[in-house]
Amino acid sequence: MRNELFLDEGAGAESVGRGFEQTEAEPAHGGDLSTARQIFPAAPEPWLDLSTGVNPHCYPFRAPPSESFTRLPDPRALAGLEGAAAAAYGVEEAASVVAAPGTQAIINWLPHLLPAQRVGLLGFTYFEHARAWGRVGAQTSVVEDIDALEKFDVAIIVNPNNPDGRLVSINRLRDLADRFYRSGRLLIVDEAFGDFQGPSASLAPHLPPSGAVVLRSFGKAFGLPGVRLGFAVAAPEFAAKLRAALGCWPVSGAAVAIGTQALGDASWLGETRRTLEVDAEKLDAILIEAGLTLAGGTALFRLAEAGDAQYCFSRLGEAGILTRRFAERPHWLRFAIPGSEADRARLRSALI
Amino acid sequence: MRNELFLDEGAGAESVGRGFEQTEAEPAHGGDLSTARQIFPAAPEPWLDLSTGVNPHCYPFRAPPSESFTRLPDPRALAGLEGAAAAAYGVEEAASVVAAPGTQAIINWLPHLLPAQRVGLLGFTYFEHARAWGRVGAQTSVVEDIDALEKFDVAIIVNPNNPDGRLVSINRLRDLADRFYRSGRLLIVDEAFGDFQGPSASLAPHLPPSGAVVLRSFGKAFGLPGVRLGFAVAAPEFAAKLRAALGCWPVSGAAVAIGTQALGDASWLGETRRTLEVDAEKLDAILIEAGLTLAGGTALFRLAEAGDAQYCFSRLGEAGILTRRFAERPHWLRFAIPGSEADRARLRSALI
Repeated sequence: MRNELFLDEGAGAESVGRGFEQTEAEPAHGGDLSTARQIFPAAPEPWLDLSTGVNPHCYPFRAPPSESFTRLPDPRALAGLEGAAAAAYGVEEAASVVAAPGTQAIINWLPHLLPAQRVGLLGFTYFEHARAWGRVGAQTSVVEDIDALEKFDVAIIVNPNNPDGRLVSINRLRDLADRFYRSGRLLIVDEAFGDFQGPSASLAPHLPPSGAVVLRSFGKAFGLPGVRLGFAVAAPEFAAKLRAALGCWPVSGAAVAIGTQALGDASWLGETRRTLEVDAEKLDAILIEAGLTLAGGTALFRLAEAGDAQYCFSRLGEAGILTRRFAERPHWLRFAIPGSEADRARLRSALI
Repeated sequence: MRNELFLDEGAGAESVGRGFEQTEAEPAHGGDLSTARQIFPAAPEPWLDLSTGVNPHCYPFRAPPSESFTRLPDPRALAGLEGAAAAAYGVEEAASVVAAPGTQAIINWLPHLLPAQRVGLLGFTYFEHARAWGRVGAQTSVVEDIDALEKFDVAIIVNPNNPDGRLVSINRLRDLADRFYRSGRLLIVDEAFGDFQGPSASLAPHLPPSGAVVLRSFGKAFGLPGVRLGFAVAAPEFAAKLRAALGCWPVSGAAVAIGTQALGDASWLGETRRTLEVDAEKLDAILIEAGLTLAGGTALFRLAEAGDAQYCFSRLGEAGILTRRFAERPHWLRFAIPGSEADRARLRSALI
C-alpha cells in the first residue's frame, strides 16, 4: 500500500521513512485514523485528525426523516438538491449541475466519458485525477505553467490547489476554457476547496457553454464528508452524459435532505467563513511559533514547510495528532484548521 | 420521458394509455410518487406505494453516530462492511465483495470495465442492464432460453427475475459460469431479489474462481433503499478493478454503520422471511379475489396478470395506490407486498 501510494503521487518519490520507524501502511489519503493507529500504536486517544481539509465546524443539519432511509430517493427531491446546488454555486441552469456520491465518483467517471489520450495536470496536486486517467491508459503529465496545458486533450486544474492553495485567476481559467471549447477539448477545474473563496473565484457561474467541467465538494465546506455528496457543473449535454453514468439514485436520501438544507443556507457559509478565518490565523501563529514556514493554504487547510517536516509528522503522530505529508514533497506538511482552543492547545504543546 | 422508458424496455412497445387519461410522464422506475401525483392529481394522500420490490418491514437500525456524517468513512470500517456482507452471502473471501452506492452503480460500471460487443439477457427483465450496455455501444439481445446465452460475450441473468420471479437453478448457473470462465467471458447474475430465497439459491457462495459477477442489493431486503448500498461478488482480480472504479469512499458513513449492523443480523432476516411469507399469502388472496391471475413473484413482490391490468393500474392510481406496469407486457401488474392490515384493506377495497 505504501509503495502504491508513493508511485501514485509521481515518479521519483523519495523515501520519507525519516524521523520515525516505518511500520506497515501509509494512509493513501487524509482521514485514515485506522492506519495512523497502526503507525503510532502508542499514541493517546482520541486522535486529533488534522490530515484532511474538512471544515471542523460541521453544518448543524436536521436529522433526515425516516423516509430518507426507507424510500428510494425521489427524482424530484434529487432535482431539488441539484437546484439548491445551482443556486449556491451561482449556476443559472439546474440541468448543468449533477449530484454524485462525492466528487471522487465524478473524478473516476470522467476518463470513461471523455476520449483523451494526453492529459495535463497543473502543478503538484491531488493525485486521484492522474490515477483515474492512468487506469484508462491515458498518458498523464504534470506541468508547472498553465500555458503548457494547451497541448493536451484534457487539462486539469485544482483551484484552489491541494495542497499548496495556488489560485488561478478566473480570467485565465475562462480564457483557457474558451480555447478548449473552440477546439472540442475539455478543461476540468476541481474546486473542491473553493466554497470559502467567494463566487468570484469560481468558474461555475461562467458555465455553460464552455469546454469545462467544474467539480464542487459538499463534505469539505460543510464538514460532512461522510454524507458522500459532490457535484459536477458542465454544459447540459455533458451533464446529461454524466447523470446517465451515475444512474437514477446517485446519492442517498440523507444526502438529498442534508444537502438541500445546507446548500440553501448562505448565511451559515458566510458566518463560518469568518470563524474559519480567525481559526486559520491562530493556526498560522502556532505553526510560525514552531519554526515552520507557511507555504500556502486555503480557508480549510494550511501548508507548512520545514527541513524537519518528517520529524514533525512523527512527533505529532506520537502525540495522537495526524497531519498529511507528501512523498514527493518531504519538506511539506498539510494541516487542517483546528476548530477549538482545546485542539489548538494540544497541537501547540505537541509541536513547540 | 415516457417514450424513453418504453424504448428502453424493448422495441414494439404498445401504447398503454388505456383505462386512464395519460397526462405527462410515466415513472421510469418503481417508487416515483412525484410522477404518480402528476398522473393522478386527485388521488388521496398519503399514497400507498406498491410499485417497488422493497421490503415493507424495514430493518430497525440504530441511528448512525455523528461521526458517520462528520468524518470520511474509515477504510477499515468499509472493509468491515464488506466482511459482514461476505458472511451474510456465504462468500469466503471478503476481498471478493465490493460495496457500492446501490447495485445500480455497479450495473452502470460493468460495461466500462468489461470489453464486450454482444450482450445477452435472459427473458423480459430489469431494463437498466440493457440500457447501461447500450450506452457503451454494445449490441444487446434478449433471449428466452438460457442455452441461447452461450453465444454472447457477456450474459446477464436476473435471478430470481424481476418482474416474473423466474428462478434458474444453481446448477445451471454454475455450469454456465464455468463455461464462461473457461472461455474468458463473463456471466452477470443479478440477485437483487435473492435475499429471501435462502443461500442455496445464490451463486455467490460458489465464487470465486468463476467467470461470474453476482450483484446483491441491500436496500430491498432490509427495506432501506434510501441508504444506497449494494454489493458485487466476483473473483478478487475483477473485484479489485471494480473497487478502484468506485473509488476510496464509495458509500456513506451511514451506509457503513447501518449495513454492517443489518447484514450481521441473520436472525432478523429469518424472522422477516416468515413474516413476508404470511404477508405475501394475504396479498395473493386479495389478487385472486379481485380476479387477477398470479403470474409469478418473489418474497418481495407478486406479478399479476389480467386483461384489464391497465384499468386496474388506473383505478388503483386514482385511489392513491401505485403499482408497477410494463409497456411491453400490458397485461401485467407488479405489486410490492403490503406489510399491514390497513394497507391490505386499502388495496382490497380499491381493487375489488
